[in-house]
Amino acid sequence: MLQGGLIHPASPGCYHLLPPAVRSMEKLIRLIDGAMRNIGGQKVNMPSLSSAELWRASGRWEQMGPELFRLADRHSKEYCLGPTHEEAVTELVAAHSNLSYRHLPLRLYQVTRKFRDEPKPRFGLLRSREFYMKDMYTFDTSEEAARHTYELVCRAYRSLFKHLGLRCVQVRAATGTIGGTASHEFQLPADIGEDRLVLCPAGHFAANVEMVDEEQTACPTCGEKLTQSRGIEVGHTFYLGTKYSSVHNAVFYTPENKLQLAEMGCYGLGVTRILAASIEVLSTEDSIRWPSLIAPFQACFIPPKKGSKEEEGAVLLEQLYDDVAEALPCLVGDVVLDDRTQMTIGKRLKDANKLGYPYVVIAGRRACEDPPVFEVWDQSTGTVLYLTKEGVIELLSKVQLP
Amino acid sequence: MLQGGLIHPASPGCYHLLPPAVRSMEKLIRLIDGAMRNIGGQKVNMPSLSSAELWRASGRWEQMGPELFRLADRHSKEYCLGPTHEEAVTELVAAHSNLSYRHLPLRLYQVTRKFRDEPKPRFGLLRSREFYMKDMYTFDTSEEAARHTYELVCRAYRSLFKHLGLRCVQVRAATGTIGGTASHEFQLPADIGEDRLVLCPAGHFAANVEMVDEEQTACPTCGEKLTQSRGIEVGHTFYLGTKYSSVHNAVFYTPENKLQLAEMGCYGLGVTRILAASIEVLSTEDSIRWPSLIAPFQACFIPPKKGSKEEEGAVLLEQLYDDVAEALPCLVGDVVLDDRTQMTIGKRLKDANKLGYPYVVIAGRRACEDPPVFEVWDQSTGTVLYLTKEGVIELLSKVQLP
Repeated sequence: MLQGGLIHPASPGCYHLLPPAVRSMEKLIRLIDGAMRNIGGQKVNMPSLSSAELWRASGRWEQMGPELFRLADRHSKEYCLGPTHEEAVTELVAAHSNLSYRHLPLRLYQVTRKFRDEPKPRFGLLRSREFYMKDMYTFDTSEEAARHTYELVCRAYRSLFKHLGLRCVQVRAATGTIGGTASHEFQLPADIGEDRLVLCPAGHFAANVEMVDEEQTACPTCGEKLTQSRGIEVGHTFYLGTKYSSVHNAVFYTPENKLQLAEMGCYGLGVTRILAASIEVLSTEDSIRWPSLIAPFQACFIPPKKGSKEEEGAVLLEQLYDDVAEALPCLVGDVVLDDRTQMTIGKRLKDANKLGYPYVVIAGRRACEDPPVFEVWDQSTGTVLYLTKEGVIELLSKVQLP
Repeated sequence: MLQGGLIHPASPGCYHLLPPAVRSMEKLIRLIDGAMRNIGGQKVNMPSLSSAELWRASGRWEQMGPELFRLADRHSKEYCLGPTHEEAVTELVAAHSNLSYRHLPLRLYQVTRKFRDEPKPRFGLLRSREFYMKDMYTFDTSEEAARHTYELVCRAYRSLFKHLGLRCVQVRAATGTIGGTASHEFQLPADIGEDRLVLCPAGHFAANVEMVDEEQTACPTCGEKLTQSRGIEVGHTFYLGTKYSSVHNAVFYTPENKLQLAEMGCYGLGVTRILAASIEVLSTEDSIRWPSLIAPFQACFIPPKKGSKEEEGAVLLEQLYDDVAEALPCLVGDVVLDDRTQMTIGKRLKDANKLGYPYVVIAGRRACEDPPVFEVWDQSTGTVLYLTKEGVIELLSKVQLP
C-alpha cells in the first residue's frame, strides 16, 4: 500500500491524487451525478483540446491572455487546453440542426479535468493548474425558462452542500471573462479564502466585495450593518443569455417553426477544490476531517501493538473487523484494518488522523471483558463510545455512502 | 434529450462523447475498477501536464517525436501532454523514500484521458488524439515477483474480455517506445483492425506479425500451419524490468536493509477504444450491438403511434414501463420509454437500432389480449419473444449491470 498522504506534487500547480483522494473524489462525483440527474442533467464528455478558431470566434482567444495553455499540433494548427467549455458545447448543440423547442431544456454537463495557467498556483488543490470541474451548460427556449433553470441549478447546489454538511453562502458575483448578465458564487466561509464577502447577518444580502459600492455598509433590505468574511469559491453560476448562442448560432425551431437563439446558462463546481476546501474548513489542528459522506474510508480498526499488554485484544478486533465485513458488505473497502502491529496504537492513531476516518475502532483494556467492549472514536464529535460487537455494527450500519 | 448518436467530432481525432457513450464508458470503467481491485490495484490520478525534464531523463522527449503534444507555460517551462505515465509514476514512487519490501508489490493504476498527436487519426474512437486509457504500473521486489504480477494482470485482462463476451487473443508483441523485455497485445480479431496477427489454429501460438520471421509458417509447438488474421489492439502489457526504476531511482529496502531497484511492469487498456472496437465486432449491418453489460441502456419501450389502430396498446405499455421500474428499481435509468408517439414504431425501432438496446419492447396486436402479451425483441439473438407483464419482468430481472 502506498503510504503517505492525499496528494503529491508533480510540477507547479499539478498534483498526483493518491488512492484515498481518488476514493474521496469519486464519492463526490457520485453525489454530483445524482444532483445533476435530479434536475434533468445529461452527462457528456468534451475534449480537452479546443481549437483556436472556436475561441477566436467568441473573442476569448485574446481575452483570456496567459491563463490559457496554448499549443500547436504537428500540422501547426492551434489549440488551447479547455479551462471551460462554453464555445465547445454551444458548437455541439448548434450542430444539431433539427433542434426543436420540444427538445429543450437541454442540460448538459461533464466532470472532467480543466486547465488554467495560474500566475501563482498555491494552496495545493485550492488553486492548481490542472483540476477537476463539473461544468453544466443549459439551453432554454426563453429568458423565463432559462431563469427557472438557473434557479433550479442554484437550488441543487445549495442542497448538495447542505447534504455534505458544509456551510455555503450564495453571493452575487461579477461575470468576468465568462460573461453574461447575472452570476453567483458559492462560497465556503474560511479565513484562508481568497475572496472577500459582504453579508447581511440576517441573510437578506450576500455579495462578493467586488459587487458592492464602498459606501454601502448596510443591508439594502433590512438596514442591518453588513459584515465581512473571507470565502473559498467552490461553485459559480452564470446567466449567459445569448452571448454564446449568437456567436455559434445555437438555434431551435419554435412552435411556429421559426428559428430562435437558445438562452443559455453555465454552472461550475470545483470538484478537486471542494475536496481541499472541505478539509480546510472542517479539520482541526491535530486531525483531518472530511464531510463524512465523502471521507475516503469510513472506519479504521487499530489492533494493539505486538508484545504490548493489550495484545490479546488483537484477535478480538480482527474478529470484529471480519464480523463487520460480513454484516455490512457494502462497507467492505470503506473499513480499513491497520495491521502494522509493530507500531504503537498511538502512532497509528496519528496516521489515521492525517487521513481523516470518521470512526476509529480500538481494542483497549475493556476488549477482554465478556462480552468484549471496544473503543470507538467518533472523530466528527471528538467523543469516545464503548460498544460491544453488536453496538459497533449498529453504529456503522448508519454510515451513509454515496 | 440530445438526439443523435454516440460521438460528435470536435476537431480531427477529438470527439465529444454524447450521453449514451458516457453511460457505456462509465459502465466499462466500473468493470475495469473491479478487475483492478481484484488484483490489488490502487487507483491514482496523475496530471496530464508532464514536465519535459522527466521525459528528457528517460530519453523519450526526443524518441517520441511528433506524437507528443508539447507546450510551454507562461514561464516558458516545457511540458508534454501525457500519452502514458511511466516516468511520472516512477518518480512518484521514487519520492516515497522509505519504501520497504513490505510495501511491495505496488499496483497503481488510473483511468484518465491520454493524448497522442496521431499522424492520421481515423475510425472515430479507434484511433483518436484524445482517448481514455486505463494504465497500471506495478513495482515488485524481484524479477520472479514481477513475472507473477505480469501473469496476474494478463489473466485479469482475459477474464474481463470473457466477461464482456468479446473474443480476445493475447499475442506476443514488440515493446516499441515503451521498452522493456517482453510484451503482449490483447487483440480483438476484426477485418477493420490495423494489426496483422499470426495464430496457431489450436491456440499454441499467437503473435503480432512484426514478431514473426517471414519463413515461420508453422506453429513452433504443434507444427500446424499458422493462420493470419487482422486485429484491433485493445490492451498492451509490458514487462519493464528496471528500465524506468533505474532512471528515476525507484528503490526499496530489502529485508537486509539494502536499497534495491524495483522491478516494473506497465499495463494499458484502451477504454474508449474498447467501446468502439466492441461495437465494430458485434454489430450487424442494420443495428449496433454492444456487449450487453456495457450497453448504454438495457431496454427501450416503444408505444404505438398516436392515431394508429394499435393505439390502445400505449396505455398498457406505459403501465408495463412503470411496473418494470417498480419491480426492478436498479434498472431505472437503464430502461427508456420512447414516447415520440408522433412517429411510427418502425422509425423509432430504427433509431433504437442505431443506439443498440439489448431489448426492445413493443405493444403489438397481442397487447389487447387478456392478459396483455408484449413483443420483446432480443437484439443479441435477433429473436422475438411474446411475454406477459410477469414474463417481461422475469426476463429483465436477469439483466446484469456492472
